[in-house]
Amino acid sequence: MTAVGGGAVDPVVRRARAWLSRAVEPGSVDLWRFVEREGPVAVATALRAGSAPPRVQVLAGVRAGEDASADDLRRAERCGARLVVPEDGEWPALPLHSLAVAVADEPVATGRQTDRTKVLVPPLALWVRGARPLDELVDRSVALVGSRASTAYGEHVAGELAAGLGERGWTTVSGGAFGIDAAAHRGALAAGAPTVVVAACGVDRIYPAAHSALFTRVLDDGLLVSEWPPGCAPLRHRFLVRNRLIAALTRGTVVVEAAARSGAQATAHRARDLGKAVMAVPGPVTSAMSVGCHELLRDAERGATLVTSAAQVLDRVGELGEDLVRRESRPETARDSLSDVARRVLDACPVRIGVPPERLAGVAGCDVLDVLRVLPALEMADLVQWTGTGWRLAPAAGVAG
Amino acid sequence: MTAVGGGAVDPVVRRARAWLSRAVEPGSVDLWRFVEREGPVAVATALRAGSAPPRVQVLAGVRAGEDASADDLRRAERCGARLVVPEDGEWPALPLHSLAVAVADEPVATGRQTDRTKVLVPPLALWVRGARPLDELVDRSVALVGSRASTAYGEHVAGELAAGLGERGWTTVSGGAFGIDAAAHRGALAAGAPTVVVAACGVDRIYPAAHSALFTRVLDDGLLVSEWPPGCAPLRHRFLVRNRLIAALTRGTVVVEAAARSGAQATAHRARDLGKAVMAVPGPVTSAMSVGCHELLRDAERGATLVTSAAQVLDRVGELGEDLVRRESRPETARDSLSDVARRVLDACPVRIGVPPERLAGVAGCDVLDVLRVLPALEMADLVQWTGTGWRLAPAAGVAG
Repeated sequence: MTAVGGGAVDPVVRRARAWLSRAVEPGSVDLWRFVEREGPVAVATALRAGSAPPRVQVLAGVRAGEDASADDLRRAERCGARLVVPEDGEWPALPLHSLAVAVADEPVATGRQTDRTKVLVPPLALWVRGARPLDELVDRSVALVGSRASTAYGEHVAGELAAGLGERGWTTVSGGAFGIDAAAHRGALAAGAPTVVVAACGVDRIYPAAHSALFTRVLDDGLLVSEWPPGCAPLRHRFLVRNRLIAALTRGTVVVEAAARSGAQATAHRARDLGKAVMAVPGPVTSAMSVGCHELLRDAERGATLVTSAAQVLDRVGELGEDLVRRESRPETARDSLSDVARRVLDACPVRIGVPPERLAGVAGCDVLDVLRVLPALEMADLVQWTGTGWRLAPAAGVAG
Repeated sequence: MTAVGGGAVDPVVRRARAWLSRAVEPGSVDLWRFVEREGPVAVATALRAGSAPPRVQVLAGVRAGEDASADDLRRAERCGARLVVPEDGEWPALPLHSLAVAVADEPVATGRQTDRTKVLVPPLALWVRGARPLDELVDRSVALVGSRASTAYGEHVAGELAAGLGERGWTTVSGGAFGIDAAAHRGALAAGAPTVVVAACGVDRIYPAAHSALFTRVLDDGLLVSEWPPGCAPLRHRFLVRNRLIAALTRGTVVVEAAARSGAQATAHRARDLGKAVMAVPGPVTSAMSVGCHELLRDAERGATLVTSAAQVLDRVGELGEDLVRRESRPETARDSLSDVARRVLDACPVRIGVPPERLAGVAGCDVLDVLRVLPALEMADLVQWTGTGWRLAPAAGVAG
């Protein structure tokens, strides 16, 4: 396995970031700021020596004394993965810039910081399994997220959206869970398009295990991405941290199906906080799995855009003039172009027996002159015909509205 | 049949308005302004004499020479109807004020005015069949509109919404058509609530004829309302004129199901132009009958509010503090109130074999002191238990997220 574009990066830097990715649980503002200031090698050295600022040192806890980084890099290589670091050419700097902007708004904590995982902070490194360069794959990507307890409707729509995005050259990004996540990946794969699974555990693990075959197909042309080193378990709190990454890597997040107060809604709110497009798919109001989507669509402040098709998703996230949805318009009928009086005269015409203009004027509620004025145009448009004794509807025009 | 609150109105005025309602097709700005200025009796006299301003005179056309007003009033009485005029106490002046405001924005036409029916203009009189006073019934009312070619889903939702509104003391207003209109009336009737059918033909006619039994039930406690005198046919152009009245009489319009570019959407736009609440019910994106609703919900400028229940409809149109929807909130779980570190320690606890705090600190990625600090709280909340040799999840807390 050759690391894409990774040849130029100092192995010491990569090793330091590998060490940090295990020593400190991802999602810490304080650590990220410390690394930004001092660089990954100096930070790893300081933490190992126990000489980092107390607020950062406490984040590593007992892990400061362990070093599995060489092992982790080897384990990654064995499963066809690599550690992508910000110093690499394939680092998705542009999408992740949103996290750097968000973290700038975070105040510097004064005491001990305990609620770290709710904070939007860039990753220090990404474990990436699969051959394609990460930056290329996520450049034009959309997150499709939703409930694990999805309905057949939600899975159908997720698959259609992913396939539609794939056909237009866009990558689908999602978790690897049952339900909407899996349906989205399957839809993209069916369209021959690459997908990206962002996991909350090591990239050497398949979670859930039942998705072994699915992940194998994903890895043919797509990627499995994680902030956690190989072997790490999908602990519950990691999903929240992972979700911010799904939101950050993509141009927008589509919630396909979600129960009330669900994780998918949280991902949507994170996407909004990051300045990304937030979209939701409506569904039957009788379905509990669409309640979360409808809540998002009803939220006036943090509102989502209603989308019903891949074209509408790209209308929201796509570049101007390139992916914008073409508005579908119904062709105008002859009736559409009629004046108001002409329409009324037309409505006044009987189906069978022809009547004189005076009669039409009475029924239509207008002047006989008006009737005489509009009748030629109606006749030209094949809407009325002269029977010899009066005017009636032309056979094809008789369908009442 | 006794006209409700009609005793005080000069019969000459009522007769003049009856005459005008047949002589000129409803929906004319010029006529309405002329009547506002000169009064109905003077206007009827002028039109009959052919001495009205040309722009108004042409509206009556050949009908200026006919007088069926006495007949019309008699025919109305025979079917249990009356002519309600602005001079009556039961005239719904407050809701219809929106039309008077809208018409003030209309420029005074200089030439011949042909496109009259697109204009929002108050009615000159309303033919009302049924015993209840019109103003009382529409004071707290909502329009439920939608496609005639509705789906079982749309009809179910229309019925549920109407029943929910009825249970809360609100009146459903709709057309009398197949599909959503009928489902809405049936839902309200099932809840024992009154409904109002606004027709595009005379109130002595049942259109469509198949709704004879439905209209009979509506008339038990509700009303059939029309701008057109008895005997008038439901000509196609009249539906557009009628639709503005549905929007005007109510506090808001809910589009339940609508195809792309449909009449229901037009009614919604009229409601918006009148400053009324516009709402739409979402549905499966796979249903053609929800496309119109989704279009309304996607329209950023003339956007509708997404509603999924009668409570949400009243949240939009209801009076403050009276009908406002109660937000449903899920009770907080013990886990919800935990600190971030406590949640991570909890996630680190194994299900079966107890482990020491040092091990928990390693898995959770925090200091041993942190673990020792949060464990008592976790134990108090029955989330973890001490096995004698270490800590593990309490049996009930073990369900992973």
